[in-house]
Amino acid sequence: MSKLKYQDYEWAMGEALLFAEAAAKADEVPIGACLLDSQGKIICGAGNEKESVHDPCGHAEIITLRKAAELLGDWRLENCTLVVTLEPCLMCMGALWQSRIKTLVFGAYDSKGGALSLGYDVHKDKRLNHQFSVIGGVKHYETSRLLSQFFRQKRGTYNFKKPKS
Amino acid sequence: MSKLKYQDYEWAMGEALLFAEAAAKADEVPIGACLLDSQGKIICGAGNEKESVHDPCGHAEIITLRKAAELLGDWRLENCTLVVTLEPCLMCMGALWQSRIKTLVFGAYDSKGGALSLGYDVHKDKRLNHQFSVIGGVKHYETSRLLSQFFRQKRGTYNFKKPKS
Repeated sequence: MSKLKYQDYEWAMGEALLFAEAAAKADEVPIGACLLDSQGKIICGAGNEKESVHDPCGHAEIITLRKAAELLGDWRLENCTLVVTLEPCLMCMGALWQSRIKTLVFGAYDSKGGALSLGYDVHKDKRLNHQFSVIGGVKHYETSRLLSQFFRQKRGTYNFKKPKS
Repeated sequence: MSKLKYQDYEWAMGEALLFAEAAAKADEVPIGACLLDSQGKIICGAGNEKESVHDPCGHAEIITLRKAAELLGDWRLENCTLVVTLEPCLMCMGALWQSRIKTLVFGAYDSKGGALSLGYDVHKDKRLNHQFSVIGGVKHYETSRLLSQFFRQKRGTYNFKKPKS
């Protein structure tokens, strides 16, 4: 089994960003994810679908995990890496635990709703039957910018300061 | 809006048990759930489908929440009560938070995998954007017996002691 490198995560984050951008076009919160196999090849990916599908679990991470499990015919996604543009919420951290992935890679930190930022260290809880690695902040600038732009547009306050001329 | 009583929860737990029994017949871990509207009427219900559908998120709670949101055309399940035969795991507690339910009612406690039993008090975390009530231990005997029987059968160790004659 090849060991994935930081460059592999950066490349995959670029792909996850494409799913996030597609979500934004569908008026969803622009979060995207993709799942890599042990060789770093993308199995599948998705963007948020919460509003369009009326699904409380319609987060990019969960859609990607479910899609991959269906494709592989197995809910155990061992040796897989989930790459997502925003730090996962508690529900998605739970889903990552349930699907037994090897590594989680995320982009922007979410201080208000991110499981890790709130102190829910699900991935290293030894009382649970599976643990996994976490790498945060990959392409942090690009991933957080996409979200900030989306919410600024939603609020109608596109007030970037012009550089002084 | 009518206030549901303990008897309503007991009745609904009986219904959730039927979904759990159907899951057992399909060789799934026998856990069942149903969702009640503010009047105590069942919107929908489901049993576990993790193995048969190859879905890491195929827990009774998540299937029920997703089905209800689809039926109602809204992912916000405010004023709804989720009734489930076993204490939810972290993923499902997250999904309950995400779907903004009013109350969670569960049967048996799960000391190994239950979010509350492990100290993850998601439902009363004021840092999150939604809180909900929890009532545990409803029909505890019936709900835990169904699970014990299932796992005893799986292990092939059906060694109930005969009463002394």
